[in-house]
Amino acid sequence: MANQQVYASVITIGDELLIGQTIDTNSAWIAQELNKIGIWVHRRVAVGDVWEDIIKALDEEGRLSEVILITGGLGPTADDITKPLLCQYFGGKLIVNEDALANVKNIFQNILKRPMLDRNLKQAEVPDICRVIQNKRGTAPGMWFEKDRKIYVSMPGVPHEMKGMMIQDVLPALQQIFQLPPIIHRTLLTAGIGESFLAERITDFETQLPTNIKLAYLPNYGMVKLRLSARGKSEKLMAELEAEFDMLKSKLSDVMVVDEDLSMQQVIGRLLVKNGKTLGTAESCTGGYIAHLITSVPGSSAYFKGSIVSYANEIKEDVLQVDPQVIKNFGAVSKETASQMVKGALKMLKSDYAVVTTGIMGPDGGMPDKPVGTVWVGVGNAEKTETHHFHFRFDRQRNMELTGTHALNVLRKFILNGSEG
Amino acid sequence: MANQQVYASVITIGDELLIGQTIDTNSAWIAQELNKIGIWVHRRVAVGDVWEDIIKALDEEGRLSEVILITGGLGPTADDITKPLLCQYFGGKLIVNEDALANVKNIFQNILKRPMLDRNLKQAEVPDICRVIQNKRGTAPGMWFEKDRKIYVSMPGVPHEMKGMMIQDVLPALQQIFQLPPIIHRTLLTAGIGESFLAERITDFETQLPTNIKLAYLPNYGMVKLRLSARGKSEKLMAELEAEFDMLKSKLSDVMVVDEDLSMQQVIGRLLVKNGKTLGTAESCTGGYIAHLITSVPGSSAYFKGSIVSYANEIKEDVLQVDPQVIKNFGAVSKETASQMVKGALKMLKSDYAVVTTGIMGPDGGMPDKPVGTVWVGVGNAEKTETHHFHFRFDRQRNMELTGTHALNVLRKFILNGSEG
Repeated sequence: MANQQVYASVITIGDELLIGQTIDTNSAWIAQELNKIGIWVHRRVAVGDVWEDIIKALDEEGRLSEVILITGGLGPTADDITKPLLCQYFGGKLIVNEDALANVKNIFQNILKRPMLDRNLKQAEVPDICRVIQNKRGTAPGMWFEKDRKIYVSMPGVPHEMKGMMIQDVLPALQQIFQLPPIIHRTLLTAGIGESFLAERITDFETQLPTNIKLAYLPNYGMVKLRLSARGKSEKLMAELEAEFDMLKSKLSDVMVVDEDLSMQQVIGRLLVKNGKTLGTAESCTGGYIAHLITSVPGSSAYFKGSIVSYANEIKEDVLQVDPQVIKNFGAVSKETASQMVKGALKMLKSDYAVVTTGIMGPDGGMPDKPVGTVWVGVGNAEKTETHHFHFRFDRQRNMELTGTHALNVLRKFILNGSEG
Repeated sequence: MANQQVYASVITIGDELLIGQTIDTNSAWIAQELNKIGIWVHRRVAVGDVWEDIIKALDEEGRLSEVILITGGLGPTADDITKPLLCQYFGGKLIVNEDALANVKNIFQNILKRPMLDRNLKQAEVPDICRVIQNKRGTAPGMWFEKDRKIYVSMPGVPHEMKGMMIQDVLPALQQIFQLPPIIHRTLLTAGIGESFLAERITDFETQLPTNIKLAYLPNYGMVKLRLSARGKSEKLMAELEAEFDMLKSKLSDVMVVDEDLSMQQVIGRLLVKNGKTLGTAESCTGGYIAHLITSVPGSSAYFKGSIVSYANEIKEDVLQVDPQVIKNFGAVSKETASQMVKGALKMLKSDYAVVTTGIMGPDGGMPDKPVGTVWVGVGNAEKTETHHFHFRFDRQRNMELTGTHALNVLRKFILNGSEG
């Protein structure tokens, strides 16, 4: 079946998605993984735990796509709709699957060390006309159905259970069946420039782009990712993509953070490892968010010393040794306080670099001369300290995210300039 | 139109949703807000920037729902599909809207302080047959269409822009048109008990629940929310819901965190404010995540002093004054280290309470006697210190989330017991 276009639909089942209690992170992950094996998701549909709505979604997506991936509706407290429905839809009857039963028993006896409940035992029942996909991370097995040359796979909605099944079973199986050329991507991350200004700067580039290479703008936490995509794996195509990517990079060298699909915190981690340097943070307004971003990267203990989250002014004074007179004269949100926080962080955390934040995230705390969104970022090493002023105009959460992004970008530039000089 | 059931569909437009680069948080928020005014979302559909796919989605959802909310496809670099498509679909022509133009000009002249681009000016164009919804937070206006007695609203995909339009315009307008009884909810948060065990404990309760009251299980960060819902606002129904909710609470009093729709960190914030107490954290394995959770609550500066993120052992020793001999003898991930971290945090942060974490989040760092997922949580005040051992079995991100949730729950119980004793 090589070289044809294969489309997929993702159906998510569950009232919790429709009443807004759960944010669907599964669909994005599934789409990314399918892309890598050359399958294009062209529809995602969420329906509630309602018999006719699920049937309608199966009918519709079955007409539109070759692969239909279904998540949710299989938990121990699900309304018992999805499994009987799939059983009837594909024409089978429910039987106990011995492997699934052994798995449920093992989880309760050896991992949870608790007695098993009837409702857990019921999870080992599957329609007799599906191929069972064992769940190594939970009690609900997955089910692989085929009907009218279409593939339907039902998986639990718990993200790490679904991901385990996809990686171990579903993705390799789909890859073997369809044998598609992959969709190849080249991604670069920019910071400090808005989407429309970016677009304006690369208008000529976009105009000359061959039709088999697509450009996507992907705004994210105050940064913009640009992605070139093409389908295939011929050397000619890969060289063509590479040449276009080089052209794009040369046009954006001043605002480019990295020419790979990496996050800002991964880029900073790599820089620190490469230079054999360590980092500490002192955070007031970001309240530990920057430390959290940095430590979300596996292996960050190699370069991250820690953070002083100085939310209260007395922590700035007592732990970071900011002069109380400076806070009194200039305020906690000031260039002078940020500068002293850098020195205090370097001293207390004994790190090569320190990045610090102090600001007003809202909704309260704004003042006429320092409105909500006022932020000072400081960065420094043993030789020098810099401060930068920002003003964000959004809600608390987004102001925190933007402060984090901008502080990390200030740090990145500081490290780069230092290592050049 | 009172008392009929009104259904809504949410259509999200954009390749970024289908290639998995963006997680859709808009749909969940929209569903929550529509619920509050009595409108039930029964389908959510995501399609790419493809003319026929968008048309198909509009046709289908227009048949199924009375209200169709559309987000995305309106940015300055969007492929110029959505607006012309809507214009043609509803039969109008594009004209410049003077208010939208004034808004775009104002944003560039007074806020961004940058020259305007042609592509920004184009954002002020709208179909002449729609009601324009001004965007106070960005350059792309919203559009309200009516066709065959159905309402279609197109909004930008940027979350804070969409939310601004919904709150200021769309939700009040829909409420006025439909005048529906609200869907009323009563929510309680549980911690420390799995979904299936919870279900087992309230089997009798579920069985006796009247058909006009629905129960939903909403697992979230290692906790489970339980929600009772009913439609209406009669005193009789509200009393009935309240009686059922009281019964549920009495059955789960030992595992209930709070009987409102609040997060764990909001509950802790309220407790601290009520008791006039302050909090500090010392975080090793959570790397600032707990401080981030706490400071994500507006007003947390009233009770949160700060955190020592002691990612490196030398910070535990130098800043938190953990005895190096204790780390040498028992390891950084140990009951003894956690206990000393509590004392160090209380001393350095001068807070009434401290909660601390030390553990191995993975994927690396596991040892035979301390595998990945091993966590010690410590909590204490001037009088006493407690330590708790956990073992989580997931990936780095989820291990961090679960450590955060469990540490906060340990803290909550400690505060409650202290204030009782």
